[in-house]
Amino acid sequence: MEIREFTDADWAQVWPIVRDVIRARDTYTYDPDMTSEQARQIWVEPPPGRTVVAVADGALLGTAKMGPNRPGPGSHVSTASFMVGQQARGKGVGTALCQYALDWARSNGYAGMQFNAVAETNRSAVEIYERLGFTIVGTVPGAFEHPDLGRVGVHIMYREF
Amino acid sequence: MEIREFTDADWAQVWPIVRDVIRARDTYTYDPDMTSEQARQIWVEPPPGRTVVAVADGALLGTAKMGPNRPGPGSHVSTASFMVGQQARGKGVGTALCQYALDWARSNGYAGMQFNAVAETNRSAVEIYERLGFTIVGTVPGAFEHPDLGRVGVHIMYREF
Repeated sequence: MEIREFTDADWAQVWPIVRDVIRARDTYTYDPDMTSEQARQIWVEPPPGRTVVAVADGALLGTAKMGPNRPGPGSHVSTASFMVGQQARGKGVGTALCQYALDWARSNGYAGMQFNAVAETNRSAVEIYERLGFTIVGTVPGAFEHPDLGRVGVHIMYREF
Repeated sequence: MEIREFTDADWAQVWPIVRDVIRARDTYTYDPDMTSEQARQIWVEPPPGRTVVAVADGALLGTAKMGPNRPGPGSHVSTASFMVGQQARGKGVGTALCQYALDWARSNGYAGMQFNAVAETNRSAVEIYERLGFTIVGTVPGAFEHPDLGRVGVHIMYREF
């Protein structure tokens, strides 16, 4: 598996991954009805951020975006988001993308990485983040409307470098 | 003091308040170099959000914006932001604006209100929010670069309705 920078030609393979994740409504606080063009605006980060893809044998397995978490006085903290295609889950793609984002942020001088809204029911993501050194800073009760489980908590997670 | 909906004609008085707040770099994680037009894009909320102003004797004392905190599965939680002009501080304008936003969010069916990034050194804001029923969900260490105090923590605060 290789992780490389996103190019325009990748969107045709990235969009189905993003579309399936947001339409499932069980992990991301994104508008599930976003069009391809709206999703592209959100997912493809302009500099100083970056968007990457994980590929193996010509197949696009997953994608990540990373950059400053907030502008101005918050811009020394990074954030990142990860999505893995359904076929490729449980094979370490998310972990590899998160490790890539951490390396990228550290080498670009960020002081840490913050995740602003991790649904507490997204156990596989929470486990990856904790294994990679993130801790739960706090949990906003009921802030995520899960399609099957109702309102569940949202974690804010942080890892200092 | 009256709190009413923002109209286009108000921007000439709102912008100096926003400009002074963001250039001070001590409370908001906004780009301090934003132009008037960029700030207007951020501050004037389209529906379902709302932007309001606090006025007294023809003077514009402060302003607030409010709306959903996140799209999709996060859109039942509201958020809000408040800015008070330097001349009008310490006179209850911030409290009145926050109370207005809470009433607005409750009557629009939101389940609670979340603040995503409150600099811990912004004691007057933290005190207003706590008095109005918010609690600190967690604090991201060093996530705010204060011009005098260096890196200080950022609170996530929440009030359930």
